[in-house]
Parts: sequence; structure tokens; C-alpha cells
Amino acid sequence: MVVTTAFGYRELLEIARVPTGKKIDLRKDFDPGFSPPGWDKETANQRLEEGVQALAEWQDKLYADDRYAVLIVLQALDAAGKDGTIKHVMSGVNPQGVNVTSFKAPSSEELSHDYLWRIIRALPERGHIGIFNRSYYEEVLVTRVHPELLEKQNLPPNIDRARIWKQRYEEINNLEKYLVDNGIIVLKFFLNVSKEEQRKRFMERLTLAEKNWKFSAADIRERGFWDQYIDAYEDLFNHTSTPWAPWYIIPADVKWGTRLAVAAIIYNTLADLGVDYPEVSEEAKRELRLARLELEDEADAPPQQNEKPKKNRKKG
Amino acid sequence: MVVTTAFGYRELLEIARVPTGKKIDLRKDFDPGFSPPGWDKETANQRLEEGVQALAEWQDKLYADDRYAVLIVLQALDAAGKDGTIKHVMSGVNPQGVNVTSFKAPSSEELSHDYLWRIIRALPERGHIGIFNRSYYEEVLVTRVHPELLEKQNLPPNIDRARIWKQRYEEINNLEKYLVDNGIIVLKFFLNVSKEEQRKRFMERLTLAEKNWKFSAADIRERGFWDQYIDAYEDLFNHTSTPWAPWYIIPADVKWGTRLAVAAIIYNTLADLGVDYPEVSEEAKRELRLARLELEDEADAPPQQNEKPKKNRKKG
Repeated sequence: MVVTTAFGYRELLEIARVPTGKKIDLRKDFDPGFSPPGWDKETANQRLEEGVQALAEWQDKLYADDRYAVLIVLQALDAAGKDGTIKHVMSGVNPQGVNVTSFKAPSSEELSHDYLWRIIRALPERGHIGIFNRSYYEEVLVTRVHPELLEKQNLPPNIDRARIWKQRYEEINNLEKYLVDNGIIVLKFFLNVSKEEQRKRFMERLTLAEKNWKFSAADIRERGFWDQYIDAYEDLFNHTSTPWAPWYIIPADVKWGTRLAVAAIIYNTLADLGVDYPEVSEEAKRELRLARLELEDEADAPPQQNEKPKKNRKKG
Repeated sequence: MVVTTAFGYRELLEIARVPTGKKIDLRKDFDPGFSPPGWDKETANQRLEEGVQALAEWQDKLYADDRYAVLIVLQALDAAGKDGTIKHVMSGVNPQGVNVTSFKAPSSEELSHDYLWRIIRALPERGHIGIFNRSYYEEVLVTRVHPELLEKQNLPPNIDRARIWKQRYEEINNLEKYLVDNGIIVLKFFLNVSKEEQRKRFMERLTLAEKNWKFSAADIRERGFWDQYIDAYEDLFNHTSTPWAPWYIIPADVKWGTRLAVAAIIYNTLADLGVDYPEVSEEAKRELRLARLELEDEADAPPQQNEKPKKNRKKG
């Protein structure tokens, strides 16, 4: 029961979830330009603000409950809005309960380990929301589009290159199953931007001086591999959208729609967990009563001298 | 020039800073109940909201600039408002640029290393704000009040127990000097709550069912060591408030005042750094022009077939 009507946004949530065991066609089945009929930017942003408030309250309970964690995986082609989504959906949530990890090209230390090593080190602790800005899925995306990257991974000689991607899907599914079984909820979002919208956003970064720093020549080079990336994404969706960790394909040409959808899905997931402030055990209650008596006694006693500062300000 | 008039809050900032090379008397010189004359909760909260917005903008520049980091150390006795300060001051800042680390009793892995090992692993990366909820200062606080904890630290036999605290102050000052010299700004806050206000807040946690979980019997036990803690804090302020990493003693009996003061000091520090979106080099500008031409050419060409999804929704 992941989908509820919170945010008044049921329709998009239902169509965003990638089914298990049924092939999707990424180019035909998911429209990057979709936005829910009857909504506009202003209403959406107002709902998002309310939603982020509600999300913050649930996160507080998740933190107090301290038995679950939530792992949010964000994947997308460049300029689909990953950074903006993190900023707009998670600003307002207590940063004490949120960790964001951006996975870049692996360091030589990371390459000297198996590809999930750095991932596991970055998993959120109980009570926390962990956000992966890019993730282990890069290992079946950029590494698949540029297979020469595999050569740097010091793989054992008996690895079968013909079926390495299928093997990795299985490994990833197994890892996610393990996480979910151990209380770490896995939410996976693909921000689905169109090639034309990416062009527009790149142009903006190139044109506006204050956005120039966000652009690198590598972005254009990767754009040249657009079709290969879409193929790789489609294949991974068809293999790794599991009942325990489904993929959500979020239309990303309309920014307010993207943010609202992501917030709504996270919110609904936390709401469905039903986390709450912990019940206090009978033994702990006895301790609380004793502590209360002790503090009440103290209040009846005269105050100690060292509690009364003599001045409002420090000397000199 | 750390103190500016941002937040209209100059007065408190000036008196909060612990001077270097001049002894302070924590009980006499700093009033936990101080709040700036003429201010009230409503005005303060409104200013805080504006301030957090401004802080978020500076943080964005810090992130883009990517040469500095800010380390915020929060120390206090229980119920002084560390968690609330993090929540109210840093919610609203992009969590992608903020990491909060809570230091608890060291694990056996941590104890098998020197006491700064786990600290250094948790330092913020460039462009980020790192918040330490408790810190390495616990090694001259809880460890000093309960010296039996030292026995667990596997210290080498030649360590002089008579001067271990002075030695640690020097080591900490040296670490902080190294950090500041390498672009990691160090801001240290002590939230100065009175013993009577702590009693009230404990009573609230004991009385309100939804706050019960926040209370543990250990809190009352530590309250019994109040004077020893104040002595240990005073000594550390007199040894570790350096020109490169001064301490700020923040009145903490009035919550809105605490939050506003902490936000103002962080804001002013970022503002004084003068970070801004990076200038783009001439070579990078050439690359940007080329990229732009390429994208413009593309716009003149007919769209590729695979960019046009045939449906708005996925099949079935």
C-alpha cells in the first residue's frame, strides 16, 4: 500500500512504478513531459511545502523509532534535476537524520575493493534517511556504456564478460533484498528527462554566467551516448524492479512535478511504515518516576550558589 | 571581522566569544538566561527564518566554490538544545552540503585507535558544512569527569596522567590549527544552560509521554556531576579558545536566542569567507562556446524518433 492520496497525487504515483516481471519500453511507455492534469506550478509548490513539513514530522518519528532506515537511490542522465530534487525535497527535513552521498568515479582505494564495498560503507544508519546521488547502479550504466572502465576494476580472470551485467543485476537484487529484510527500505527513482529538455538545460548552464561552473565538456560527450544509456537503463529496469525494491520512473521535464512526485513517494513510504515515538517499557517508566521524584525534591531545596551568575555579561 | 550586524544581533555575538589568553570564570561571566534586550520570540523566529534562507544561499556558494569546509562543533550539558539547534538552524540548508555526526561512547574499534582517529574520518569534505554533535572535546570532558574511562583507551604506559588534559588541549589546538590552515573553518559553540533550566527540561521529558523516550536514567546520573563538568568546561575554554578557533559561549536558557545566535555566527563566518560561484577560466570558456555551437546545431536538425514517446502512460 505504497500509494496513498497524500499530496492529492495518486495518479502519477501509480503510473510511475515499474512492474516486476513485465518488460517495459522506456522510450514508449514513459513520457518525460508528463505532468498531472489540472495541476500547475503554484499549486504544486504549495503542496510540496506542506508535504515537506509532513515529511519532516515522519522523519522525526523514524529517528525516534530507530529500527528502520530509508535508502533513496537517485539515478538520471545529466541535468535531469537530481541536485535540485534533493535540495527542494529534503531541505526542511532535520539534517541530523539525513545523509547524502554523491558517488563519483571510484578512487584507486575503492577500485581495489569489490564494487559494492564503498556502497555498503555509505548505507544510512537506523533512524536515518540516506540519499545516494548516483549509486551502485552506475556499475551497470556508465560501466556498460564505457566497458573499458571494467578493465580498471581488477576483476578476477574467471568473470564471464558476456553475462557480467546479468550477474550484477542478481547481486544488486540480492543486496537490496538483504537490506529490506533487515529494515533498510530501498526507494529507487529514475528522473526521466527528455533529450530535448536536457539540451535546453545545458544551454541555460552555458548561457547564464552563474551557472557556467556547473557545466563540463564531459557532459556533452556523455550526451553523445544518449541511446546507449537509455538502452542500459531499460535493461536494468527490466531486471531490478523487484517487489521489495521497485523502481519509480519520474517524469523530469517539469521540475515541480518531479519534486512533488519524489516527495510524495518518500512520504507515503514513511507513512506506511507506521513508525512512531517509542513506547516506554514498564521498567523504564519506574526509572522515570524515580527521576521525577529526585528532580522534584531538588526544586524544594535552596538553589546552589554556583547557579547564579553575578553579571549578565562577561568581564571587560 | 567575524561579527557583523546581520540578523541585527551584534551585541550577543561580541559578548559570546571567549577571549584568548585571558581567563574566564564560566559561572560568573556568562549568564545562561541572557537574551538580547528588546527582542522577543516572535521577532527572533522571523529573523531566524530570514537568516536560514541567507545561510542556505551562502552554503550554496561554499559548495560551488569547493575550496573551504566549515566544521561546527556543538558541545553542551544534557538538554541544552543541541539537537533543536541543529534542526532549526540547519533545516532549510541543502542537506547535500551538510553532514551531521553524533559522537557517542567510542566502539571497541574506535578505542583501538588514538582518540582523534574517528574525528578525522568524519571531517567535512570541501564545500560542505560538517556538524559535530558532541566531539573530540568529550575526551577532556566526560573522560575527565569519569577518569576510569581512560583505562579503556589502551594508552601507552609512558603517558603522564598528571598532565594528560593539558597535553590533549595542545593536541586539539594543533589539530584545529592544521584544519584552519588547510581551509577547514572551525566554529565551536557551547550551549550554556543553567542547572535550573536543565531541571525544567528534564521534568518536561519525564512528564510528556511523547518526550519520555528522550530521557534515560543516565541523564540524571550525569546531572549529579554538574560542578565537575562546569569546571572541566571552564578549564578547556581557558586553554582552547584560540585566535584560529575561538569558542562561543551561547546563552541556552532561552531557545530562540540560542538558535538565532548560532545561526548568526555561522552566517557571518560564511559571509566573511567571501566565497562565490567560481570564475570560469578562459580555456573553459572556449569549451563552453564550442559546446553551445554543438547544441545549437542540434536544435536545427530534425528530432530523432526515439525522443517521442507514443503514450503518456505506461502500458497495461
